[in-house]
Order: sequence, then structure tokens, then C-alpha cells
Amino acid sequence: MNAVLSDSVDFAAWRQAKQDEVEQALSTWVPADAPAGLGQTMRYAVLDGGKRLRPLLVLATSEALGGSHQAALRAACAVELIHAYSLVHDDMPCMDNDVLRRGKPTVHVRFGQAQALLAGDALQALAFELLVPDDGSVPPDMAAQLCRLLAQAAGATGMAGGQAVDLASVGLALDQSALEAMHRQKTGALLRASVIMGAATAPVSPEALAHLGRYGAALGLAFQVVDDVLDVTADSATLGKTAGKDAAADKPTFVSLMGLAQAQDYASQVLDEAHAALDGCQLNDMAILHALADWVGRRAY
Amino acid sequence: MNAVLSDSVDFAAWRQAKQDEVEQALSTWVPADAPAGLGQTMRYAVLDGGKRLRPLLVLATSEALGGSHQAALRAACAVELIHAYSLVHDDMPCMDNDVLRRGKPTVHVRFGQAQALLAGDALQALAFELLVPDDGSVPPDMAAQLCRLLAQAAGATGMAGGQAVDLASVGLALDQSALEAMHRQKTGALLRASVIMGAATAPVSPEALAHLGRYGAALGLAFQVVDDVLDVTADSATLGKTAGKDAAADKPTFVSLMGLAQAQDYASQVLDEAHAALDGCQLNDMAILHALADWVGRRAY
Repeated sequence: MNAVLSDSVDFAAWRQAKQDEVEQALSTWVPADAPAGLGQTMRYAVLDGGKRLRPLLVLATSEALGGSHQAALRAACAVELIHAYSLVHDDMPCMDNDVLRRGKPTVHVRFGQAQALLAGDALQALAFELLVPDDGSVPPDMAAQLCRLLAQAAGATGMAGGQAVDLASVGLALDQSALEAMHRQKTGALLRASVIMGAATAPVSPEALAHLGRYGAALGLAFQVVDDVLDVTADSATLGKTAGKDAAADKPTFVSLMGLAQAQDYASQVLDEAHAALDGCQLNDMAILHALADWVGRRAY
Repeated sequence: MNAVLSDSVDFAAWRQAKQDEVEQALSTWVPADAPAGLGQTMRYAVLDGGKRLRPLLVLATSEALGGSHQAALRAACAVELIHAYSLVHDDMPCMDNDVLRRGKPTVHVRFGQAQALLAGDALQALAFELLVPDDGSVPPDMAAQLCRLLAQAAGATGMAGGQAVDLASVGLALDQSALEAMHRQKTGALLRASVIMGAATAPVSPEALAHLGRYGAALGLAFQVVDDVLDVTADSATLGKTAGKDAAADKPTFVSLMGLAQAQDYASQVLDEAHAALDGCQLNDMAILHALADWVGRRAY
């Protein structure tokens, strides 16, 4: 049923409409007029790129629960800004030293390392600023909750911590448990937070929230397994970033751990867990969330 | 009168007590157990260093207005974490490339550039996390307001923007207006935000807030003028950082613009404006805020 849903016109149309809305909002909220070219660097890092998976998760979860669209749109863009800044910093020479991202030169290649560093820093600040508008469009208790979830997902026990583990893991033979723990922080925390932040824009029962958390965690893990598969099966032009770089960097991956075919099977298995978690939610309209899980599996985007 | 106040036992005792309290709080809130050494790197960047001017401004303003001490202590530490992360990133080779800070090797010298980058990123996230505890100790509307003020001060139109202008200004002959505009963002925004965030932890009239904003702005400018003076008059051991580096980097400063003696006079003049702004507040107990302005002028610390 889910495969049919994700192939349906409804999901494609929903996705396109939301991607357009997020692009428009980001273009409004990432300032062009920040001084000394910083605004242009920030916009280069954020606009016109990426599939906006994290914003789509925020919006879909909020919609499934009947949440506030204004708050969800701000949360969606805030999560995307954190993701975008992490890519800018991650690509820098002292980290992954990558030159290609979303088919374009990386930010430090285009604007220099100092601008890349500052633009990333400013994007993180802007993410939090988006969540606390002074126009009353996000109630203060919701805004504080969204800030808390985002800060926890981005910080030392979330994304930044996972990146530190990733750097420390080069050349090591991690077992599956250690590899999953690393990715649960590095990419999983922000993907899971996207779902939970979407839920935070709506009334939600503790039971539904727990199921949604499991959905987000499974989807985050599946995303990473698929990413590792694509790193060896796709070329750089298709990926829009340098292919084969994990192997070249001697980084542990699900493919290096379990082999290609088994990694592909594992991705399917984890996505089944994501669907099962949604089935436990007992909400009315979970079709888009099911479709997003299928979309992560297919990566037909 | 103010000079007498700032020399009094009361201010010295107050300062020491608050510095100790902030140190203790930071030691509690900056996690030692973040993965892959990240926690240790963050603690190295934050603990046991600095005069804590920004936290002292938050706490003094909150106390002058009878604000919430719990909220003020969190705001004080949040501002200090933003300041600390900015120093870590600013010292990196792609920025100022400095090796000495607070008398110790800079973070990237001690732990490597990748760890320095990630620790700075994680410190920024932690700053926002501190402002939105889930224990009810900061009311949601106050927490949201504190997040907004901090994000604005740290981001593209505040500190990060000012650093971009600073980088773009190397070798340029800025006039006084342009130099002040740059510093109003680079260091002034966070110093002024320290005062305004302290005020946000308390009931405050719009008139008093406006005066406090002028106090914070004047104090921020004076701080920078004094910093420029010290860069040519003090040695590295006294400063705890590399002396004479602005001139070596061909950066415009108040000393290069107006000469040493006139820069010293200008610092005094701006500090008089800070005191005058406080006198306009008509609050009961402004002694500590006056003393802090004197302290910035003397830099006897």
C-alpha cells in the first residue's frame, strides 16, 4: 500500500508544493543584506539546493496532527538551516575537505574558508532566531520547546557530537552497534528532531509522540544506510557530491560492515520498522509520512 | 563617585562571588561526557578563563531590576558560551590564526582544527539550550525573548556580521564612523545584549530599557577602544593573548585612526556616556553597573 501511495500524484504534488513553500520562506528569511557578503554566502549555502527532507518531515508531521502551519514552517526552515550550516562546516578542509556539494562548488571553495566558517555560524544563530518571532505567530511555550528540541539535536549530544565520533572513527573497524550509535547522533538526531518538532506544533498524546519518535529514528537510520549504499553505487553527477569518498577516506560504513546486498536489505528492513511505528500512531492521515519513508528508501530524487 | 564605588570592597567582593558562581554553573552545564573528546574540548574553551564581563553585565542588570536569578544565571552563561565559541572560531588559521588565548594555547593548537570547529558549533547550540530548560525555572515567554535577543546579537546582523566586516576591512582606511559601525556589531552587539538580556529577566519600563540599551552600547564601544589601546600598550603576558597583532595584521583600530592619547581620551568620554545613561534610568541600585563601566575603563583585571 505504501509503495502505491508514494507513487501517487498526491505525494508528488504535496512534495513539490511544500518544497516550493520552504524555498520561498528560506529566501525571505535568509537575509541578502547581511554585511560584507555574508548574506550572499549564507544564501548560496541554503537556497536552490537539497531535497528538503527535514522540512518535509516537520511539515508532514505537523499536518498529520493538525498543527500550526506558521510554527511548522518556521521549524521546517530552522531545521534546514542547521542542516545547511553543518554541510558548510563539514565540507571545510579541516573536516571532510570536499569541493562539490549539490552539484556546485562548496561554500569555502566559492567564498573562502573564513566566510564559510562565519556563514555557518550565522546560519545556526538564524535557525534559533526563526523559532522565536516577536509577531506572536509562535506561542512562547511552543517556541521554547522548539528551541530546546533543536538545540539538543544540533549540539554535543546530537549532530556535533556524532561528527566528532565520525572523525575519530576513521580507520577503525566499528561493529554495527557502534556504527549505528554514531549515525544516531550525526544524522539521526536532526532527522528525528524534524519529526518531533513537527509534533511539537500540535496537540499530541505521549503515546503518539513515542511512536513518531520511533518513526523518526528508524527513518534516520534508513537514510544513512541508503546513503552508504549510494556512496558506492551512484556516481558524483547523480549524487551532486563526491561519490566513493567514504571508502577513500577509510570511513566505516554499513556497506563496508555488511556488504552491499545485505546493506540494501537492511535499509528495507529498517524502513519497515518506520512504517510499523506509524501504524501504531492511530492518527487519521499518515499517508504522507508513509510516503516520505518510501521516498527515503527509493531516493528517487 | 563612580571611581570610589568601583574601588570599594563591595564591588570586588560582588565581582568575585559572581565570577565564582558563573564558573560553577558553566562547569555544571558544559558536559564533560560529550563523545570523542568533544566535551573536554568545549570545557577547555570555556572554563577557567576570561573575566566574565558579559555574564557580570547580565547578572548586574538583572539584580538592579530585581529580576529572576535563575533566568539571569542561565542567560549569563549562554552569553559567555557564545563569546567563547566566537573566540575558538576567530582564532582558527582561516581567521586570525592565533596561537595564544588567555595565556594558553588556542583550542585548535591544542586539539586540532576539526575539534575546534565542532566544539565552537556545539557551544553555540548549548547556549540556546541553556535558555530553554524543561524544569520550569525560566518562564516560556522569558525564555523565548532571551533566545531572540541572543540569536540577533550573535548572528549575521550582530557578531558574525561584524566579524565578516572586520575580515573585509584589513588594509582599508576606515573612518571613525565605519570603524564604530563594525565594532557595534562585532563586539558591541553581544555586550549590549548582555545588558538587555539581564533586563529581560525582570519587569522593566520601556524608558529604563532604552537607557540601559544606551549604557550597553556605550560600554561596548568603550571596551573596544580600550582593547585597541591595550593592543599597543600591553605585552602578551599581561593580555594573555598576542599583543600588537592588530597592527601586524594591518587592521584599522581606534589607535591607528586617532592616535594613542586621543584614543585614551575617547574611551573616557564614551564611558562618561555610559554613566550618564545609567543616571537616566532612575532605578534604585545602579552602583554595580556604574562600577562595571569603571572596570572596563581601568581594565585592572
